[in-house]
Amino acid sequence: MLYFENDVLYKSDEVIEEMMQNALAYASSNEFIIQCDTIVVIGIGGSSLGTKAIDSIFKHRNKDVKKMVFLENPDEIDLSEKLASIKKERTLFIIVSKSGATIETISIFKEIIERFCLDFADGDKQQIITITDENSVLHKFSYYYGIKSFLIPANVGGRFSVLSAVGVVPLSIAGYDMKSVLEGATVMVERFFSQKENHILKKAAFLTRYKEDTPINVLFSYANCLEDFTKWYVQLWGESLGKIDKQGNNTGLTPIGHIGSVDQHSFLQLIMQGPRDKTVTFIKVDNFEKEIKVPNISLKFIEKTDYINGYSFNELIDGECDATKESIVKEGINVDGITLDVLNEKNIGKLILYYELLTSLCGIMLGVNTYDQPGVEIGKQILVKKFQK
Amino acid sequence: MLYFENDVLYKSDEVIEEMMQNALAYASSNEFIIQCDTIVVIGIGGSSLGTKAIDSIFKHRNKDVKKMVFLENPDEIDLSEKLASIKKERTLFIIVSKSGATIETISIFKEIIERFCLDFADGDKQQIITITDENSVLHKFSYYYGIKSFLIPANVGGRFSVLSAVGVVPLSIAGYDMKSVLEGATVMVERFFSQKENHILKKAAFLTRYKEDTPINVLFSYANCLEDFTKWYVQLWGESLGKIDKQGNNTGLTPIGHIGSVDQHSFLQLIMQGPRDKTVTFIKVDNFEKEIKVPNISLKFIEKTDYINGYSFNELIDGECDATKESIVKEGINVDGITLDVLNEKNIGKLILYYELLTSLCGIMLGVNTYDQPGVEIGKQILVKKFQK
Repeated sequence: MLYFENDVLYKSDEVIEEMMQNALAYASSNEFIIQCDTIVVIGIGGSSLGTKAIDSIFKHRNKDVKKMVFLENPDEIDLSEKLASIKKERTLFIIVSKSGATIETISIFKEIIERFCLDFADGDKQQIITITDENSVLHKFSYYYGIKSFLIPANVGGRFSVLSAVGVVPLSIAGYDMKSVLEGATVMVERFFSQKENHILKKAAFLTRYKEDTPINVLFSYANCLEDFTKWYVQLWGESLGKIDKQGNNTGLTPIGHIGSVDQHSFLQLIMQGPRDKTVTFIKVDNFEKEIKVPNISLKFIEKTDYINGYSFNELIDGECDATKESIVKEGINVDGITLDVLNEKNIGKLILYYELLTSLCGIMLGVNTYDQPGVEIGKQILVKKFQK
Repeated sequence: MLYFENDVLYKSDEVIEEMMQNALAYASSNEFIIQCDTIVVIGIGGSSLGTKAIDSIFKHRNKDVKKMVFLENPDEIDLSEKLASIKKERTLFIIVSKSGATIETISIFKEIIERFCLDFADGDKQQIITITDENSVLHKFSYYYGIKSFLIPANVGGRFSVLSAVGVVPLSIAGYDMKSVLEGATVMVERFFSQKENHILKKAAFLTRYKEDTPINVLFSYANCLEDFTKWYVQLWGESLGKIDKQGNNTGLTPIGHIGSVDQHSFLQLIMQGPRDKTVTFIKVDNFEKEIKVPNISLKFIEKTDYINGYSFNELIDGECDATKESIVKEGINVDGITLDVLNEKNIGKLILYYELLTSLCGIMLGVNTYDQPGVEIGKQILVKKFQK
């Protein structure tokens, strides 16, 4: 969790682990939570993207965690399909809204109250948790009815909040090892603030210095389970840096997320031969746990694909990442790579903090307020006017 | 299906419907296909994106269609999860590859042959279909073993092929009303070629004329089920237009897909206050079928969200689209909108053809070959060298 004041970057005090312990203590003393098997997170944008990213990365390798369902968009098809899959008697509902009055989130919460006859004033309150700012309207609502509420630190913006209560509470209760994620994040903080490792600083300086030449950063992740992580990155990068700077100019860097090798068959041509306005960052994982080998089968007439026989699919995707990177480098396009030796909680903690730091440093260098989002307010006001009678 | 030669845009002969009838006749005469309930499509890029887009849009409202599973990325976690869900005795396997030797696709096919003991030389051949170019190695393989094969017209590139055998065969067999999709596409073709409607031409002229000022086009779709459609658009746009033009310059327009209202909480800030390098296209649906109303519940302290009570979630998302569009227009950013009166097959056929035409026209105006992808070949060559012993 990072914030800055008067152009100085701070890390917030390490109270997160204490909060995580509180959440776990609450969960283990709540009989309903102990036996429930599903967590429905109602939230949108920074209130869901980071949590969803971590769930997507690890759910396939943690068969004993609780199932997480995310209600984000007020899209009726999506909503009714997900609601139909929910069994009230086995579900914990977590409502996440920094302001406490996010229109999509509160409207979906109302639908849940009605559909499941959720008696928040009485017996059902043990299956509701809210996560919000202190003294927000949702906090006041929770306090009034005795609903358990966890607080988001006031100086932490939504898109920087995955390692606050926003992500840590639901993911810990679901059964994920958030302690290791936080440890990974701490390692990255220490490396930057104490050990003065400066590679992130150099990258930020490069990206912002050449923001006119290469205003677009493409994040190419070589693993399907990182798709939601790239969506988190897109919000973090886009909403933090796309601002009017101190000189009154429109500035920012445009983030685009892609998944390899699928998007080699889609977006790569544009990178290779299109306008030279992009930098590309590759994320790959060295040691996946599973190993499915391409069978030693030679298909008549299609023998030219046999060069991959006996290698694992992981080696194929890894080779594709390297080959694509080499081909882009040959074109003279600026490329960098992030390699996770294994896809574990600690490394994901590092990766999250890496991006929060990088974004914050880019923000300082661009001369913007990284942590606000004034540009989205006008649309919200227009929306209210459309509906108010 | 569009192609151009010597700077003239052609539509290919209308043999698609005949091909669709052939596919349906084959399916209804094949006892295995009649009783199977799952179609596994093995393909990547243009061989899967369009088919997946149509399946994603309509599967929620067609409960009697066969389930479609897409095996695209050689990602082991994704692959093993999907493979574990497949029951061989109820599954039709469709292998789609224009060249016939796409390394990801053929490798996954080999895994399926081994895992399910698929005896393609004998009894199991009735549950395999291939879709490929005439005389490709996959076509030769199919012919040799008597496996049913449908052909992709030689002059139709992968990303323009959803309305050829590539999309029409699997989707028709799954039970989708592809006749209406093709009818919608024909309406759009007629409007352009016969009735000389020129709004698409004007849009292409605008986008390409101002390609230096606004090199990025953001497609903001207000429906979750359009997410795969935006991925199809990203490939179509990026891979068709990102080219070296006739003067030897790197040119193109960069496509970005987003989903509203979720990404209002992510990318919108960048559009509103970031660099003025984007045009934005909104897609919205006027009449969704379902109607879930926000309940008339007033939550103590959160009463300020009550303005939306009694309206449907569809009206909320619709209002968000309009409000966001207005707020962007106020900023002086160029915006256009596509409204589907209903989300049906005919309208999706029109939308697909609209984008194929728009892309083709932009390609002509940019002076590029819209239908090739020379930039991705070098990466493929590097890959082969990495593995060949």
